Amino acid sequence: MDTEKTRVDADKLVILASRILQRFKVPEEGALITARVLVAADLRGVDTHGIASFIPFYIKGLREGTIKARPTIKVVDTVLSVATIDGDQGLGFIVAYRAMIEAIKRATKTGAGFVSVRNSTHYGPGFYYAMMALKQDMIGIAMTSPIPEVVAPGSSKTAIGTNPLSVAVPSSKKPPFVLDMATSVVAAGKLRKAILEGKSIPEGWAIDKDGQPLTDPTKRVLGEGGLLPLGGIPVLGSYKGFGLGVLVEILCALLSGTAPGISRMQGAATSHFIGALRIDSFLPVDTFKQSMDEMISAFEALPKLPGIDNIYVAGGYEAEIEKERKANGIPLHPKVLMDLKALAEETGVKYDL
Amino acid sequence: MDTEKTRVDADKLVILASRILQRFKVPEEGALITARVLVAADLRGVDTHGIASFIPFYIKGLREGTIKARPTIKVVDTVLSVATIDGDQGLGFIVAYRAMIEAIKRATKTGAGFVSVRNSTHYGPGFYYAMMALKQDMIGIAMTSPIPEVVAPGSSKTAIGTNPLSVAVPSSKKPPFVLDMATSVVAAGKLRKAILEGKSIPEGWAIDKDGQPLTDPTKRVLGEGGLLPLGGIPVLGSYKGFGLGVLVEILCALLSGTAPGISRMQGAATSHFIGALRIDSFLPVDTFKQSMDEMISAFEALPKLPGIDNIYVAGGYEAEIEKERKANGIPLHPKVLMDLKALAEETGVKYDL
Repeated sequence: MDTEKTRVDADKLVILASRILQRFKVPEEGALITARVLVAADLRGVDTHGIASFIPFYIKGLREGTIKARPTIKVVDTVLSVATIDGDQGLGFIVAYRAMIEAIKRATKTGAGFVSVRNSTHYGPGFYYAMMALKQDMIGIAMTSPIPEVVAPGSSKTAIGTNPLSVAVPSSKKPPFVLDMATSVVAAGKLRKAILEGKSIPEGWAIDKDGQPLTDPTKRVLGEGGLLPLGGIPVLGSYKGFGLGVLVEILCALLSGTAPGISRMQGAATSHFIGALRIDSFLPVDTFKQSMDEMISAFEALPKLPGIDNIYVAGGYEAEIEKERKANGIPLHPKVLMDLKALAEETGVKYDL
Repeated sequence: MDTEKTRVDADKLVILASRILQRFKVPEEGALITARVLVAADLRGVDTHGIASFIPFYIKGLREGTIKARPTIKVVDTVLSVATIDGDQGLGFIVAYRAMIEAIKRATKTGAGFVSVRNSTHYGPGFYYAMMALKQDMIGIAMTSPIPEVVAPGSSKTAIGTNPLSVAVPSSKKPPFVLDMATSVVAAGKLRKAILEGKSIPEGWAIDKDGQPLTDPTKRVLGEGGLLPLGGIPVLGSYKGFGLGVLVEILCALLSGTAPGISRMQGAATSHFIGALRIDSFLPVDTFKQSMDEMISAFEALPKLPGIDNIYVAGGYEAEIEKERKANGIPLHPKVLMDLKALAEETGVKYDL
């Protein structure tokens, strides 16, 4: 599939996207942050959250006024390790970036920092914020609670969002551990991808309004049936996946004073939960990083079942893609490039990819 | 099955177990804590971690000297929100209880408290420590990393423990949210239970050394094949369950300076990760608890699929069992009672159940 795509340079893509954002009145720093987060998703192969979503999600929101270009972000704290942030409906990228800066600041002082965020908007790929903690030798945590698309076990009505959670942990020579997962069996993007490619989806990803497996993604009706929580069915532990999803909902929405997804109107404000733990408040950083390397190497060296070439630890596969795409460019669909070029022309930004 | 069991009073069971523990030189306070945690598991229906495990696991450990009755627990901290604890191979119940007290103390001051624990032993049911935070209007977190029994996706060799995580969140009138889950499809106790009952297990719980589904639990060979991570197979997200398990391993073992399970000798020291977040450092407690109630009620009121009577939120079912068992007693197998009676006689403790 990549053969029909054109490779573009990551840095050039960042510059283009950030310049376009500035034409929509996003301040330079926030525009750069947003562009970097989006391109980071493309670099690590999380294409569903990359530049392909730039125009249909974020430029659309800025045009329509559902996303503010110049929000007044408010940080409130009453104690040393915790803060709450009101995102003023700003670009989720800028709000979440700021939240992680605040979490890191608190963890630097006390060992732990946690920030609940209300009134934000979609923040794209969560791993980016979690990974911001790595350079500080901290463990980074990022969660977000979007609109409900996941059913509760025993019902075919959507109850919670795909509620992804991201955790990044530094290592030494091995790639960092980066868990970046929806708490549903699959993220909603996988269904959109299957529709685009005209493919069916496996049993166990979603159900229809009667609770029957949904394998034709085009037959999905919003509000009827939905994605299954991780585990899929009760006998295989779907109440665990649902429980994890509810936990993310509690930490993001309820702890920030946002109504839970099940009683929220569609399109209403998104919430996040951002945290950092300073490793050297537990033990020496070098000791920790060395045992991360040893553990990851031990997993990779496990005997493999027939047909399996590699055993990956979370973040390992993405690190390989990142290395390749940094060297050879990001493969983008001609349609994405065409739309970017048109938008550049519309906004008077030089198109130079 | 409960018909062949005898109902015993929870308080009497606590007194009996704590008196027996004191005969094994466990100090009175630690003996009471241990007995209360075990009986709490029975009260909430987590029978695999209740009093049935008292003699075969903990009394055995105390007799053999693998568990210390009078450990010297050391708490070290260099910052306000974080501490590390060395459990000196004491009873895991006492060590983890102490760790949660320390986490709560720190969260009271700064909003967040986290404690990594090394050189502990098996701590029984994790929900107990997480639920200790509820009375303080805090969110409680408890994780532990036992010996490897779970395979990595793509291998049939065990790589990590069932690495359970427990999170408790206070509510107002509804039962608290209590997530208490192994990060594998099922906990190892479910296989032991199936063996005792002479039953087969569903496909998707475990695999044999060739990676084939293991459905006869008596055919399980330790070190060959193992339990599957939550998600079961890669197309249904087993890399997510494995990633969660590795995260628990990192937080418990690596952050406390313990070797990861994959390179640890069997029976070597167990590690924990214990945390607390103070809700009123984020928002007013009453506002939070009210929205917990509203969210839980909304989930319970979801339309149900045919054959489903109730939709449970994590902890809801256990709260129902607890209410019934507090009123009518804990159903115990005659064999468990016989063994308890014999041990009471051996140690000169009055048997009065």
